Amino acid sequence: MTNVAASAVADYPLNQWYCAAFSTELGQQPLARTICDRQIVLYRGEGGRAVALTDRCPHRKAPLSGGRVLGDNIECPFHGMLFAPDGSCVDIPCQRAIPPAANVRSFPVVERHGHVWLWPGSAPPDEGLVPDMHWLVDPALSAVNGVMEIACNYLAALDNLLDDTHLSFVHRNTIGTPKIVKADIDIEGDADWVGFARWTLDTPPSAMHAMAGGFTTNVDRWFNVRFTKPSTVLIDVGSAPVGSGAPQGNRASGISLFSNGTVTPSTPATCLYFWHTARTFKVGDAAFSTSLRAHMEETFIEDKEILEAVQRNRACDAEKLPDLNLAGDAVTVRARRIIAALVEKER
Amino acid sequence: MTNVAASAVADYPLNQWYCAAFSTELGQQPLARTICDRQIVLYRGEGGRAVALTDRCPHRKAPLSGGRVLGDNIECPFHGMLFAPDGSCVDIPCQRAIPPAANVRSFPVVERHGHVWLWPGSAPPDEGLVPDMHWLVDPALSAVNGVMEIACNYLAALDNLLDDTHLSFVHRNTIGTPKIVKADIDIEGDADWVGFARWTLDTPPSAMHAMAGGFTTNVDRWFNVRFTKPSTVLIDVGSAPVGSGAPQGNRASGISLFSNGTVTPSTPATCLYFWHTARTFKVGDAAFSTSLRAHMEETFIEDKEILEAVQRNRACDAEKLPDLNLAGDAVTVRARRIIAALVEKER
Amino acid sequence: MTNVAASAVADYPLNQWYCAAFSTELGQQPLARTICDRQIVLYRGEGGRAVALTDRCPHRKAPLSGGRVLGDNIECPFHGMLFAPDGSCVDIPCQRAIPPAANVRSFPVVERHGHVWLWPGSAPPDEGLVPDMHWLVDPALSAVNGVMEIACNYLAALDNLLDDTHLSFVHRNTIGTPKIVKADIDIEGDADWVGFARWTLDTPPSAMHAMAGGFTTNVDRWFNVRFTKPSTVLIDVGSAPVGSGAPQGNRASGISLFSNGTVTPSTPATCLYFWHTARTFKVGDAAFSTSLRAHMEETFIEDKEILEAVQRNRACDAEKLPDLNLAGDAVTVRARRIIAALVEKER
Repeated sequence: MTNVAASAVADYPLNQWYCAAFSTELGQQPLARTICDRQIVLYRGEGGRAVALTDRCPHRKAPLSGGRVLGDNIECPFHGMLFAPDGSCVDIPCQRAIPPAANVRSFPVVERHGHVWLWPGSAPPDEGLVPDMHWLVDPALSAVNGVMEIACNYLAALDNLLDDTHLSFVHRNTIGTPKIVKADIDIEGDADWVGFARWTLDTPPSAMHAMAGGFTTNVDRWFNVRFTKPSTVLIDVGSAPVGSGAPQGNRASGISLFSNGTVTPSTPATCLYFWHTARTFKVGDAAFSTSLRAHMEETFIEDKEILEAVQRNRACDAEKLPDLNLAGDAVTVRARRIIAALVEKER
Repeated sequence: MTNVAASAVADYPLNQWYCAAFSTELGQQPLARTICDRQIVLYRGEGGRAVALTDRCPHRKAPLSGGRVLGDNIECPFHGMLFAPDGSCVDIPCQRAIPPAANVRSFPVVERHGHVWLWPGSAPPDEGLVPDMHWLVDPALSAVNGVMEIACNYLAALDNLLDDTHLSFVHRNTIGTPKIVKADIDIEGDADWVGFARWTLDTPPSAMHAMAGGFTTNVDRWFNVRFTKPSTVLIDVGSAPVGSGAPQGNRASGISLFSNGTVTPSTPATCLYFWHTARTFKVGDAAFSTSLRAHMEETFIEDKEILEAVQRNRACDAEKLPDLNLAGDAVTVRARRIIAALVEKER
Repeated sequence: MTNVAASAVADYPLNQWYCAAFSTELGQQPLARTICDRQIVLYRGEGGRAVALTDRCPHRKAPLSGGRVLGDNIECPFHGMLFAPDGSCVDIPCQRAIPPAANVRSFPVVERHGHVWLWPGSAPPDEGLVPDMHWLVDPALSAVNGVMEIACNYLAALDNLLDDTHLSFVHRNTIGTPKIVKADIDIEGDADWVGFARWTLDTPPSAMHAMAGGFTTNVDRWFNVRFTKPSTVLIDVGSAPVGSGAPQGNRASGISLFSNGTVTPSTPATCLYFWHTARTFKVGDAAFSTSLRAHMEETFIEDKEILEAVQRNRACDAEKLPDLNLAGDAVTVRARRIIAALVEKER
């Protein structure tokens, strides 16, 4: 197994869609986000369209995100230069002429299934590459979501979504059980994606699944996990009472959670983690949604803590020994190779 | 217009006077200030004279500013070495002899009109270069003042004092009105100074001037702004009711504020901003002084916030595109050229 | 006097014993400490033995100090790899085989007289070099202790323990008196150690000794201070009423404090200071121990403040003039030479 995990990735595949925000986060109040080392201001013009511009006025480099949205445009808070959604300057209050350099970069944005996707690269954007998450807006399901900044390299956060062997340790009190790390997995994939299926049969439910499904007996639990480039993981996970036929395809007695995690690089040492979980049970139950959201947040804070501890531990590591890959890294190593190939292709 | 604003100035003209403190700040309690990258301790000896020494004991580099003033001298807090106002060591408690290297640098200091001016350079100081601010101590006027550390390069803070086009945006709720940015200016100057005059006629008063002058109708407002090297801006600003003759020279019905702002470089990313405002109205009204001071502070906090946001935004700017100069920068660009020429001359 | 003090020591003698913790600090809860730039986890296995391992799992570099102690082993909190006291991996939950690279470094540890000593170097450890502090566990004495992180280079903290001339200034309100800096000292030592004796005769007691000894008249005070490599200082200090015969060897009317200070480098700009003070009076008086401990802490916070101020002042010092050595530095300069020779020998 080559040592992909150990290589410090200082750049990102740029001609890809990255989640910049949830649709619900965007309004007339500008939102500042750092995406692939680019400072970006996001807002929604009066027509409702999502806009993403470089968050740095060409005049004196003030952050536009401190300014006002006026109609579809955004005003620099320092001297009032006004920028349109395409990044062109449409007004310079102190003068009549608008010089050619008076503009900021506008980034392609696509809004789909509650996510605002941004294309940081300079190649023409390909809308066909936007990850499909249509179930998030399926009226037959209920969904909760959240966004979290994690002070770690985005690849480590992505590994974490793809690797469920850490559930037995990091999440032993929330979504993990001891058997997960021991169960075999089936891996599939090609040059563009990689995924795996895992079953733990006849085990006590995790604390979270017991809460969600009200299980009082052992359960069969499934994980169907799939990485899609550049940095999204789709997770179909659930539990059902032993003997109710889940391994044979009958999930009727169980609970199913469709979780999507997408990780956006901010800087080499920070990232944004967007999670969105739809469920097939207790649909429309707002009180349960609140409770589930709190349980998910608790779980992800466990991830955030270990990921940030690792990042700090790497930062003060003078030895810089290569990482040691284990059997449990088979999927994450393949995902990293897919990303490395994308980076390589852009060089 | 050449791009003076964009050049990162890593040094300062040193053979110049910079404000180190207000006279009222200095007493027997030592004051630590960083001026042009030099750590300096300021204090007033028992004779009342202001003293400025390198804030670093030659023995083990302890900050003298943590020590006691004894008579005219200052004692190192670590091992008691005693330094005179000229920087010479006059006592080493653990030994009798005083070696030649046992001294710190003493900086020339001139105290005038309530300001303590310090000469950080090694050329002989020229007292003729101390900025004239005699009106600050004119008994016919009342004055308020303040000092603020701003986490930005001092040139950006200096630009801000010289540029009133930002008033229409940064200070729209305090001292700004929309028309300022649109009004024409007359620029004057030479190799040593630059200034401008601006009038906004028949406009609603700014919030602050309305408060100060009790105006209920439109006003004519004037700005007479003058930069003097190395980093002081003198601002004569006021408002008078339309028709009361202010543009013709009769300010009797209006309010006049003589503001002096002087900016002292601390480090490349921090500076000290000293402001001092004298007024021709409500002279001796202490309650009004308190209120005016609070309004000025509120205004300068608006400046501090945008200047620090710009500094942070420049710090993470990987593109480093040159700044784009606008018509509103005509004065600041000339002031920066004057400073750049001073730096060049010292090389 | 050559300028040893001024040289920035970027490394440490590694084939030496450094204090990693007090014995009372170690239990089944892992303790993270940085020692000579090495991140280390310390814990006590179920057999009670102290263990010190590199605090960085070879898999993904997670800090083992966030994990659980299981028997004599420690579990990585991320994916459950289990490490034995010798640093070998004894279980990888996700796979059967344990590859050769699956281990962490184990550091030699010796526990003696309440201190846990760690050998960071790669040469075979020599237990004969562990500092002797048997009086700390002498049942005829009572002892109090404490550990403090100081944000300064460890050599500066070590100097401070060896130099009592600063007592007249830094500690004028606690353990210092004006005469200390003026008293002569007798220095002894060789290539491995250096020490001195100092008496201040017929002086008012320090605030702390007056409290401890209940003195109402002048006292004779002694200091017997000895540096032993690599970074421990043994201090025999006390006061006795004038005329009670202390200078002639009769301490019966006085108080004696045997303080040991040992300083452990963490990083070039931080260190750990362990202090331990045994006394010959009020033995077994718990209330007095509490009070004495508070007085000692107060004193050491005075040290911490000046040492950290010096460190900050050095960090922003652009001139980097060499330190000026004084007569009062005769002992610290010799101690630094002993350390420099150790470093040199390891090169």
